[in-house]
This record gives sequence, structure tokens and C-alpha cells, in this order.
Amino acid sequence: MTPPPFFTLEATDGAARAGWLATPHGRVATPVFQPVGTQGTVKGLLPAQLEDAGVTMLLGNTYHLHLRPGEAVVARLGGLHRFMAWPHPILTDSGGFQVFSLAKLRRVTDGGVDFQSHIDGSTLHLSPESATRIQNTLGADVIMAFDECAPYPCERDHAERAMRRTLAWARRCQQAHERAADQALFAIVQGSVFDDLRRECAERLVDMDFPGYAIGGVSVGEGDDLMYQALDTTVPLLPAAKPRYLMGVGTPENLLECIERGVDMFDCIMPTRNARGAGAFTPHGKVRLRNLRHREDPRPLDPTCDCTTCRTFSRGALRHFFMVREMTAAILVTLHNVTFYQRLMRHAREAILQGRFAPFKAAFLERYAQGEDTTPQ
Amino acid sequence: MTPPPFFTLEATDGAARAGWLATPHGRVATPVFQPVGTQGTVKGLLPAQLEDAGVTMLLGNTYHLHLRPGEAVVARLGGLHRFMAWPHPILTDSGGFQVFSLAKLRRVTDGGVDFQSHIDGSTLHLSPESATRIQNTLGADVIMAFDECAPYPCERDHAERAMRRTLAWARRCQQAHERAADQALFAIVQGSVFDDLRRECAERLVDMDFPGYAIGGVSVGEGDDLMYQALDTTVPLLPAAKPRYLMGVGTPENLLECIERGVDMFDCIMPTRNARGAGAFTPHGKVRLRNLRHREDPRPLDPTCDCTTCRTFSRGALRHFFMVREMTAAILVTLHNVTFYQRLMRHAREAILQGRFAPFKAAFLERYAQGEDTTPQ
Repeated sequence: MTPPPFFTLEATDGAARAGWLATPHGRVATPVFQPVGTQGTVKGLLPAQLEDAGVTMLLGNTYHLHLRPGEAVVARLGGLHRFMAWPHPILTDSGGFQVFSLAKLRRVTDGGVDFQSHIDGSTLHLSPESATRIQNTLGADVIMAFDECAPYPCERDHAERAMRRTLAWARRCQQAHERAADQALFAIVQGSVFDDLRRECAERLVDMDFPGYAIGGVSVGEGDDLMYQALDTTVPLLPAAKPRYLMGVGTPENLLECIERGVDMFDCIMPTRNARGAGAFTPHGKVRLRNLRHREDPRPLDPTCDCTTCRTFSRGALRHFFMVREMTAAILVTLHNVTFYQRLMRHAREAILQGRFAPFKAAFLERYAQGEDTTPQ
Repeated sequence: MTPPPFFTLEATDGAARAGWLATPHGRVATPVFQPVGTQGTVKGLLPAQLEDAGVTMLLGNTYHLHLRPGEAVVARLGGLHRFMAWPHPILTDSGGFQVFSLAKLRRVTDGGVDFQSHIDGSTLHLSPESATRIQNTLGADVIMAFDECAPYPCERDHAERAMRRTLAWARRCQQAHERAADQALFAIVQGSVFDDLRRECAERLVDMDFPGYAIGGVSVGEGDDLMYQALDTTVPLLPAAKPRYLMGVGTPENLLECIERGVDMFDCIMPTRNARGAGAFTPHGKVRLRNLRHREDPRPLDPTCDCTTCRTFSRGALRHFFMVREMTAAILVTLHNVTFYQRLMRHAREAILQGRFAPFKAAFLERYAQGEDTTPQ
């Protein structure tokens, strides 16, 4: 029996796409937003709460899981799905991004990267082969090629070296990959803000025929316009039959802009990290829950939201939980923000299926930019 | 129509009792253990998780809620039940215990207590009248008289003064109480470790005819034996038709010893605070989840437990969450510990109803004291 194709394109609306990923742990409707479960858990939420929020796929961080508890421990505890108690699809990144953003004293060679753990300073090494082996051991449904993520700003020389290394490493990841039957290995397009480098990287990776392609090296400080430009350069070169994944993005506005440019998959800490800082996403923009104006407000955070937080707690109670530093505050707003992000993706998908993505996006962005009416009640 | 009696005694087994509290927010089977929701939330758990854990009644702390957000804010947000999103019974303490344990620079007079907030040092005053008024405003189902809790150890003179003040204040609380129709006001028996003081306090309070009686001034460092002695002195003097509440207790062993001595109600931070420190309660004693022996243990924390934690996460995963300081760790073990405490109370109740409390208690304590078999698997 032939397995189902990994990705099925269901509909397009301009460049925007609605599709399906088929993984060993179930199907995922795209566009999909993956909350981040860095260390084996989405901070503050249990699996059942993630399901209630509409989450269908999670991201785990290879760098963090390699450091603690180590992929061998995860494997002995039954693999990443069992470890996280998440029986649905999971994607792991390659560790590359964290090596370049968190670790200290890096030395990059063609062989790989020597670096010091940000936890205890111990010396570690990641290479295309070891990053792939670690991800094979963790057992996620989608795994990522080990890449060199250039910083921003970055000289063209540096960006070009990183891009060529990323190409060579992608090939080595492909060769090292031992679970191609049940783990889809995605390659990552680098090239910083240089259109010709992005183009060359995309074309060469497409020739290598990966089951999916990520656009990496964005959301590193270059700003929205350069990020959209990287997409405008890269996405048209990627095959229509393969999913496109934009790593580490982003705000609600970013998601809609990038869906419009043909991106199928996203991950970001934005809904979860903002929640812990008392920032809540609503159809009328971001709400700062520590603001005094919420103190005696008996209304829900978002009356149009059906999450537990909005169904049961007042803004006044949420503000209080933040002011007295109760973890219940982070839990409740994380639950809401993740629900908000998932609903946004669901609505975007419906709009694509109905051929009305552009007006949907315009209406959302107009209301979102407007902000709340903060006239005292 | 006459309201149902506040307390109904269903069965006794020796001095142990099974009964029912009838409150405006529902009935509660006794013996009952109330998890502590100090600042309007049980740390880490949402109301639905508390319900799943079998919780029927919560405790809120008047001192903390008076400081932040203030009872007026709680009232404007719909009262304490609405504020906490807990539509079931709630008990508030009087604030007395926190004034004597947390606040600074106290001055106690017959009028009340002047103290400094432990949050910002502001000068505050609590009296029998204001503590009752605050609790009337918060709106719990059971409220507590404002008492003077003597420290341990304590000179007899001091204990006697505090006891007499507690008696005078109980009367003033009774007179100040404005919601006797829907809030049951309990008096608190003080007297430190002096049997004659305890006896006098109990007898005088019983003469004042409160709907329930608490034994206070225990669990302040006097040790289990002196606490049991205080119960042995006090409980026989309390009317059988009124519930008895032991404040701030305790370990699983304490609960069974005190149920055997006729106590109906408990509250304690033990299951929740221990959980945050990686201490988990099991039928085989307390388990320290940071211990290295759990690192690769794929088994549940307690295979006989039906809570989400035990149904879905391995000990290895729980240990990892503690080692990397994920709040998921505290959430999962709080859920388990609260479930454990509620199950213990349910089993105690069933044993009383079936007239087998003594053997039930003996079997539980034997297994609990034995500890886990820590032979490497």
C-alpha cells in the first residue's frame, strides 16, 4: 500500500493555500500555527487544554531537549509524543537557530558547530549528522535540516558562506536521515536579505527534492518589509506540491500577510510569551491586562471568544492574578492567546476555501489595528 | 419555607463522623478537605481541574483578598464565587491568622489589630467588625470569627489573654454579621496547649450558639501530639449537631487521626505547596520527584490514580519538568496531590459509613509509612 502523499493542496486563493499534511500521528489542516513546546511542554498548558484551544500540531526544540533531558532519556520514556503526552503531530527544529541565538563561544566549521551550553557552559557539538540523529531519536513527525542561520544585519560574504554551508548540510542531513518512512525532513532556505542568494538556495534545495521547505533566517531583526521581500523572492520558486514553513513567525498581521504569500506552516512563541507578560490578543488588537482600566471590569477579555478564560473569568480577575503574580494568570491568558491564534488560522483557511481571503484579511487587519474603545464604561 | 439545616450528621463510627453541609452554593459531603485559594485561585489549577480532582469546597484568605484586589473590587466583579469562577461552596478565614503570621509591627488591643501590610508596609487595621464586614462583602458560604491566635510556645498568661479576647471578639463578630441568612459564621476555639483554657473557650463559645466551630491555634509548631491533645480536650465539648473545622491541617496522617477524633472540615496548603516543591503524595508515602531515580522511569507517579497527571505523564517527564523549571511541573503535581487528598477524604467517608474507619485508617497508615520500593527496576 502506498502511503498517502505527505501534503495535499486542497484550494488556492491567489497565492494563499489551504491544504493537508498527512503524518503518522494524524492529519493537519493548513495553514497551521504550531505553538512552541520548547522543553516538552507548552508553558502552562496541558495537552487537553491545547486540544480544546484547537491546536493540531506542536513544535519541540531539539537544542533544549538534547541538553535536558537528552534524546536518549526521551526515547527510553517512549519517544517525544509519549513524553509530552501529545499523541498528535509534532515538528522538531534542528537546533541550529538556538545554537546561533542562545549558545556561547560558537565555532562554525564545515563539519558543524562547537558551542557552549547556555545551561552549564559544557562544550557541545552539533553537525548535520548529529542533529538529524537526535531528531530521529526524538521521533517527531516533521524534522528540520541543520542550517546556519546568518544574523541580521549581515555582510553579503557572510550570508553567502552560511547559505552554501546550509546547502551542503541539507544534503548531509538527507543522507543521515534514518526514518524517512515516518519522519518528513524539511530543508531550510537561507540567504539573509539578498534576493539572489535566497533564489539560489531555494532552487538548489528544490533540486534535492525534500518533502517540505522552510524559509529560515527571518524574524531576526530585519523587519516586516524585508521578511515579506524574502518570501516574495523565495516562495514562487518552491514546488506547489510541497508545504512551505515560515520559522518563528509571528504577529497576527504577519500570519495573514504570509498566508497571502503562500506560506502553509508557522510556529512562534508570540501567543505564549505574550500571555506570560499579560499581553492578550483580541480581535481589537493586543490588550495589556495590567492596565488599571481593567481593575473593576466585569467583562470577559473577548466576548466573542469561547475559551475557558473568556467564558469564566472577568478582566478584573485576570488583572488581579497578574498583579499578585499568580501562575493562574499566565495559564488563563496562554489558553486564550493560543485559542485566538488557532481561530485566526481556521478563519483564514475557511476564507481561502471560499475564495475570499483578501477581504477577510482586510477586515481583520482593520479591526485589529483600530484597537479597543477605552472610554470608561 | 424553612431552609435545610446547615449541617446534617449522617453516620458516626466511634468519634468519626460522616455528614453534609448545606450551603447556598450546594451541599458538601464531610469529612471535607478544602484546598487553599489564597488570592482567588488555587495556584496552578483552573476550576474545571479542581472539579475533576473531586474538590467540593475551597478556602479563600480574607487578609490577602482585603489587601489585593480589595473586597470592594471583588464585590464589583460579582462577589468571590464569580471572581474565582467557582460556583461551589467557599469558606473565608477571618484574616486573623495571617495578621499574626505575615504582617509586621502588630499592635493588638481589645479594639483590634493595627499592622503593616506585608506587601507595601502600609498601616492597616482589622477588628472583629471589619473582618466580618469584609467577609460579608466577599460573600463566602462560611465565614470565620476574627480571633487572636497565640504563638507556640506561649506563656499561659498570654494564651489566656488571647483566649478571652477571642471570646469577646466572637460575640462582636456575631453582632456585626449582616448576612446570617446565607453565610454561616463559625467561632474559633483558642487556648493554646492549655487544656483548661481550651475547655473554657469551647464551653463559652458553645453557649453563644454558632452554626459551626473551628479549632484554631494548632499547626503553629506545637507538634502532632499536642495538636491531638487539643482535639481530645475540645471536640467532646462541641455540639454533635454542628460541624467541627480544624484550621490549617495537615498531612494525610494528620487528617485520618483528626477525623478519628471527630473533625469534619480541614484546609491546608500542604497538597499544593508540596506539589510546587516536587513533593507528590502517593499511597506509598511522599515521593520526591527531583530524585535521580525517576529520570528514566516510564511509569506513572501513582498507577492507582485516575488523575490526568497519572493517566498521561511518566515520572521521567515529571522529573524533567521540575529540573527545567517548567510551570507544567507544578500544575501536574498539584492536580495529582489535590486528587489524592480528595480521594483520601472520600475513602475515609465511605469507611465511616460502613463502620470500618479504624481498619481503613490502620491499613492506609501502614502502607503510607512503608514508602516506595526504590529497588532499581
